Amino acid sequence: MPSYTLYYFNGRGRAEILRMIFNVAGAQFTDKRFEFNEWDKIRNDMPSSSVPVLEIDGKDKMPETMAIARYLAREYGFHGKNNMDMFRVDYICDCLYEIMHDYMRYFHEKSGRFRSGSSDKSDMAGEMQRSFMETCRRVLPFLEKTLEMRNGGSQFFMGDQMMVCDMMLYCFLENPMMENQTMFNSYPKLMALWKRVAGHPKVSGYLKKRSNTNW
Amino acid sequence: MPSYTLYYFNGRGRAEILRMIFNVAGAQFTDKRFEFNEWDKIRNDMPSSSVPVLEIDGKDKMPETMAIARYLAREYGFHGKNNMDMFRVDYICDCLYEIMHDYMRYFHEKSGRFRSGSSDKSDMAGEMQRSFMETCRRVLPFLEKTLEMRNGGSQFFMGDQMMVCDMMLYCFLENPMMENQTMFNSYPKLMALWKRVAGHPKVSGYLKKRSNTNW
Repeated sequence: MPSYTLYYFNGRGRAEILRMIFNVAGAQFTDKRFEFNEWDKIRNDMPSSSVPVLEIDGKDKMPETMAIARYLAREYGFHGKNNMDMFRVDYICDCLYEIMHDYMRYFHEKSGRFRSGSSDKSDMAGEMQRSFMETCRRVLPFLEKTLEMRNGGSQFFMGDQMMVCDMMLYCFLENPMMENQTMFNSYPKLMALWKRVAGHPKVSGYLKKRSNTNW
Repeated sequence: MPSYTLYYFNGRGRAEILRMIFNVAGAQFTDKRFEFNEWDKIRNDMPSSSVPVLEIDGKDKMPETMAIARYLAREYGFHGKNNMDMFRVDYICDCLYEIMHDYMRYFHEKSGRFRSGSSDKSDMAGEMQRSFMETCRRVLPFLEKTLEMRNGGSQFFMGDQMMVCDMMLYCFLENPMMENQTMFNSYPKLMALWKRVAGHPKVSGYLKKRSNTNW
């Protein structure tokens, strides 16, 4: 069994899905967190100067949130079992990633972190928020329908087993829902799934014990 | 064998990697292209109002460029053979996707297409171009090193076999290189790989016969 170290800021952000997969699988990993003011020291040690990064056996550092998530999902049985099912899990995940990616860009822009300062960006945060909301309006109705296609949407995206796409729904909508719950009222099946994931014994156990951060 | 229809604009853009995989695999598909002025009619028929979309057997329409690319790569043997190799192929692909995604956003913003018009966006294209160039500066040195790790970078990313990540390097850098070749001069191994992919018998055959569009 390889040893895993996960590098990310001391927040949920892009890394929470990875921590959740490890925890739901009952797998060991080192959760290496750092603060924003440490980033300048750390970034040069990270491939492609970004996080999350998964380090394997203390040597190979692998970047890219979604590539890491799919690797762990395959490793622990949270991905599709055949090519078509992997495709379905994958496009649900990628749809959710569109939302998370746009949200995180808006979230960091709003805070002024990582700003290059090359021009007047006074309206950039507003622009990014509009872009994030537009992505939600485009993607969520499709996901609501996709969920409904299996057992009327009363279980998980792929049926009776919770997969990486279900965990991703929880993690990627958590911050946006804290900011504006009403945006999601038009998607009752997705909201019920969100609660179903939170109530899953393995997930609820993790949610109780996890580090409490404000993003 | 399922029948495939690929929906996208009449341009290379996000769909060219999918067309290339089909062609290199020698697989049949219907290449359904439309013009920008037809988009308003078509978008409501597309899941999540976006393209590319892959339709299977005339019924299921599947969205998300990268989920489609990985499905086809697994189907035709252009993905890793075990979980760790899939992870490597995947993070290289996702790094390249970061570049392509930022480029396409800039490309469409510059043209004024798909603009919501909600605010003054006079500097948005410039901002997006800077963001795209910053992504290149962040990601490409890592990919240059990654390539070099196998056989000194003289073959393909994963060794002697061309995989989906190599084809992606070709397709995702094609438009950016047409716009500004010098940006890529600092990455000689990647540029040599770009030419190696173009010269691969299956790829060069496709490049000769493909539809000639300006993006």
